[in-house]
Amino acid sequence: VGAVSMATTKSSTRGLPSGIIPALTTPLTADGRLDEAGLEAVIERAVADGVDGLLVLGSSGEVAALDAETRRRTVDVALRASDERVPVVAGVVGTDISATRAAIRDLAGAGIDAVLVAPPAYGPLSQDGLIRFYESVVPERIPMLGYHIPAFTGSRIEPATAALLARSGCLAGIKDSNRDLEYLQQVVMAGADAPGQWNVYVGTDSLILPALLLGADGAITLAAGIAPRWPVELVRHYREGRMPEAVRAQEMLTRLILALRKGAFPAGAKAALELQGVAGRTLAGPREALSDAEVHALREELVGLGVPSVAEQESK
Amino acid sequence: VGAVSMATTKSSTRGLPSGIIPALTTPLTADGRLDEAGLEAVIERAVADGVDGLLVLGSSGEVAALDAETRRRTVDVALRASDERVPVVAGVVGTDISATRAAIRDLAGAGIDAVLVAPPAYGPLSQDGLIRFYESVVPERIPMLGYHIPAFTGSRIEPATAALLARSGCLAGIKDSNRDLEYLQQVVMAGADAPGQWNVYVGTDSLILPALLLGADGAITLAAGIAPRWPVELVRHYREGRMPEAVRAQEMLTRLILALRKGAFPAGAKAALELQGVAGRTLAGPREALSDAEVHALREELVGLGVPSVAEQESK
Amino acid sequence: VGAVSMATTKSSTRGLPSGIIPALTTPLTADGRLDEAGLEAVIERAVADGVDGLLVLGSSGEVAALDAETRRRTVDVALRASDERVPVVAGVVGTDISATRAAIRDLAGAGIDAVLVAPPAYGPLSQDGLIRFYESVVPERIPMLGYHIPAFTGSRIEPATAALLARSGCLAGIKDSNRDLEYLQQVVMAGADAPGQWNVYVGTDSLILPALLLGADGAITLAAGIAPRWPVELVRHYREGRMPEAVRAQEMLTRLILALRKGAFPAGAKAALELQGVAGRTLAGPREALSDAEVHALREELVGLGVPSVAEQESK
Amino acid sequence: VGAVSMATTKSSTRGLPSGIIPALTTPLTADGRLDEAGLEAVIERAVADGVDGLLVLGSSGEVAALDAETRRRTVDVALRASDERVPVVAGVVGTDISATRAAIRDLAGAGIDAVLVAPPAYGPLSQDGLIRFYESVVPERIPMLGYHIPAFTGSRIEPATAALLARSGCLAGIKDSNRDLEYLQQVVMAGADAPGQWNVYVGTDSLILPALLLGADGAITLAAGIAPRWPVELVRHYREGRMPEAVRAQEMLTRLILALRKGAFPAGAKAALELQGVAGRTLAGPREALSDAEVHALREELVGLGVPSVAEQESK
Repeated sequence: VGAVSMATTKSSTRGLPSGIIPALTTPLTADGRLDEAGLEAVIERAVADGVDGLLVLGSSGEVAALDAETRRRTVDVALRASDERVPVVAGVVGTDISATRAAIRDLAGAGIDAVLVAPPAYGPLSQDGLIRFYESVVPERIPMLGYHIPAFTGSRIEPATAALLARSGCLAGIKDSNRDLEYLQQVVMAGADAPGQWNVYVGTDSLILPALLLGADGAITLAAGIAPRWPVELVRHYREGRMPEAVRAQEMLTRLILALRKGAFPAGAKAALELQGVAGRTLAGPREALSDAEVHALREELVGLGVPSVAEQESK
Repeated sequence: VGAVSMATTKSSTRGLPSGIIPALTTPLTADGRLDEAGLEAVIERAVADGVDGLLVLGSSGEVAALDAETRRRTVDVALRASDERVPVVAGVVGTDISATRAAIRDLAGAGIDAVLVAPPAYGPLSQDGLIRFYESVVPERIPMLGYHIPAFTGSRIEPATAALLARSGCLAGIKDSNRDLEYLQQVVMAGADAPGQWNVYVGTDSLILPALLLGADGAITLAAGIAPRWPVELVRHYREGRMPEAVRAQEMLTRLILALRKGAFPAGAKAALELQGVAGRTLAGPREALSDAEVHALREELVGLGVPSVAEQESK
Repeated sequence: VGAVSMATTKSSTRGLPSGIIPALTTPLTADGRLDEAGLEAVIERAVADGVDGLLVLGSSGEVAALDAETRRRTVDVALRASDERVPVVAGVVGTDISATRAAIRDLAGAGIDAVLVAPPAYGPLSQDGLIRFYESVVPERIPMLGYHIPAFTGSRIEPATAALLARSGCLAGIKDSNRDLEYLQQVVMAGADAPGQWNVYVGTDSLILPALLLGADGAITLAAGIAPRWPVELVRHYREGRMPEAVRAQEMLTRLILALRKGAFPAGAKAALELQGVAGRTLAGPREALSDAEVHALREELVGLGVPSVAEQESK
Repeated sequence: VGAVSMATTKSSTRGLPSGIIPALTTPLTADGRLDEAGLEAVIERAVADGVDGLLVLGSSGEVAALDAETRRRTVDVALRASDERVPVVAGVVGTDISATRAAIRDLAGAGIDAVLVAPPAYGPLSQDGLIRFYESVVPERIPMLGYHIPAFTGSRIEPATAALLARSGCLAGIKDSNRDLEYLQQVVMAGADAPGQWNVYVGTDSLILPALLLGADGAITLAAGIAPRWPVELVRHYREGRMPEAVRAQEMLTRLILALRKGAFPAGAKAALELQGVAGRTLAGPREALSDAEVHALREELVGLGVPSVAEQESK
């Protein structure tokens, strides 16, 4: 996968694209309901900027904290707004198998192109437990990505486990948010005997370029929703062999994601969207949005980095 | 709280008893449905042995892995079987506030005496976030315990946070399953200004006696469901000043819980119930029950410890 | 060990006493040399207050940060000042076996009664590695305690390892500073087949009473150097069956150690000694003493707790 | 630093080269003394294969477990064998400032070109403590690298701390062995205001290429001592713009380092040297070498990877 992906653009199925997939936040109104116009605006900008797919209901989308109704409407709005221009992936986080299975079935029914499924929250699973879990919830008609995020779930999906789930066709790839590129290389190799597609995505904005170099098919990341053109151009530079430009693009993205790391996750990204006039900064309860002072400080940093559309914030 | 509890038996409200509250496993049939007769048998034995309350749907009850229907029936069976002889507490684990609130409301409506509520799984909360969380879900008519289990939730409920939630009356106490008796002393002290009851429970069978000594009101523990008479007698020895006997009882419980730590939690406890002829060893998926060989080894240990009712297991 | 130790005072060898062993800080002058008069004053007070032994060069004594000359003089002063009234234990921390062996030999030659030896710092050892380590450094004529402090060494001394080293007579006991009383019970049990003495000490001031109850022989702790009479009386209450008084003494010690947890370890304890007029607050470099403002705040807390001899600190 | 390093070979001072610096193991005879011929052979091969420098007495060199005499002779042999063909860096690990300062002074006096200094083992330091530590031990005439290896020392050198020590000229760079390329980018940026050289090295063989891309000046790694030509060619491909070849070289190195991760660190690397006929596999006590069975399995893997010079091991 590695060296080849540099020279050629993979032909991808509808379900799992190569390249940049912003992990979208879920814009909320001040009283906590889905801000549909905000979500549409975020999606419209990302598609216009050339992203290869969209993720809704990921960790960045506060999936675990949203109620069922908000999750359902988020999917509906995302599918309508993307309008089949790019594939839409949806995240699933849960604790029990039957609810996870039902959520996946509903997403497939609604028209989602692929699901990104985290191991059950609340206590780690053994590797055998992870295998049984993914085999128990695998959807029939759309691909499923495993989500490696041990900081949130307690469970590590070991490379040997990924290899087994690749060979059986249960998983179509892995998103790795553990910031460990040695692991990423191992899960890239884990797909060697996969019968079909095996896509590995890095989940960290600061590591997109090195991950591509090591064989990742793309990135599913937060900052890609704030300045979508930046990672899109990074990938283009990389694929067309302009490495110095790719390095500079990576450096900008790294600075951006460091600036966004403020308050409760993903408060910085939501505040950035507010500064861009795209959507409000409200977080799903019980987490709290950045304060006015924090937003002001963030604004200075984003202006310094040249993030597009960051305007003077109105006082509240 | 500390020294006094040794000499006098606290008068407790219906909701939150002092003493021993077994954290019950949820017996399942081989095909994963609630084994109602098994649950009734477990409860009947525990009440007959003198426990002070019952916990269903805790971590020991695999609450996170059970589907909604099984959780609902577990509550119904437990309330019917206990028949108001002892209070029944129910655990609540979730990720979003609205589902947690609904679950708590349903439990109160069903007649549960108190709820034990874990911080949201899937990513840690700040202390402010924890305060907002508990304030958002507090039930109206029954007491709520906070559940300190950072290994499963990522969130630490700091003593200062517990003190604040005690003062406001939001929490009626804490169950600590972090095996840190310094923390336990701090949450005991945290209740100094509580307007009403403030009950602290230790969640670890190996620490019941020292926790009582340091001011805990009782224990909510797994092994108490396997050999209920042991911790009940430990408390009685302790309250009546027979310390050497209390120490010996603690040592037996420590040996028992160490023996039960096998396989995926709580596989050892479920296998022990099978060896006692009380209920089957099936775990909620995707976790797997102990193998026959593991059960055989466990049997030897339990017989060696003199655990009541452990019979020769039939070959399968 | 457990229940018995409550009723009878163990006859102890010269080397390893039961009861309270303050883990002494190493008083330093403002320019970083050993403050001999300060160390003598600390020891004189502790012995007068009835402690059962003394530890120098432990973690509380900043052993790892002291130079060889200061370590040597600390031992000389401690032996001279204690004057055979109580046994003196010395800590050893190192990285390579030959230096550790030499340090232990020197301590035995100087007249130290026992050594407390940590696993090599800088990277964890396997259990086999720990066994080889302790067997390689065991002194000929004085007892050696293993030091369980994984937060500083990365190595866990598993109970089965402790049992093996107990049986072979290599270790004469364990000091546990991991704040886990289930572990402590397991290492108490680990000594069942020891050919000679097997002493288990708790290393945490907040856990002295529960540790005694669970079979510990004593405590090697920091706050015992600041208010030696408090833990000495705790042990006396415990041994003579006055449990409510023992509980109150424990509560006072817990409050004291919580107050002392300020700045870099053990800055709070050294500042307390300064407030008592016993010794200065200088830390071994590169760690820094508490600021005047921090010392002032500490003073308020210590006065509130009734810690003896805490006087108004002179401005500097 | 990033993009530029790709196109041009940096002119480096004598002290701190760009490129590949093998972190050499310390060959030992069966009875634990330095195997001088083995060390010479390792060095001769590395220099012949084109490495840019050498590290002795690093974590890979088991520095913490070697006695003072072995450390001294390792330095002498390394300086004599390298014969000024490449710079020789030496690692320093200790606990107290005065011993660390003396060790650094001795190394400078012996002719070492630079030192790599870990924070004191045995308990973490605050950022202020780290600054005081490095300022206290900085050598006069040779450059000092900070060593970021929190798994062994407990101390994180935060990017802001690195920036401060870069500006003051105290540190000339950082070696990062924490496998976190976002951190590496931040310490690259931290050198922006350094008055002189600021060199960042990655310490993980699986991450050499991505680290170079993100601005690292080179790699100080274990596998580079086993197959020196591989990383040397990786760097050459990278610098000359042959990215697919660089990616393949990285993949080979990743497979090699994964194969070497066996037993106690660095047992796999030492066994590989034995299989190559270069030096024996003995570890510094108390760690133990791979068993014959483990060596046999390793041999199969190394042959499969095409590692040079791996011969059939004689039975012992």
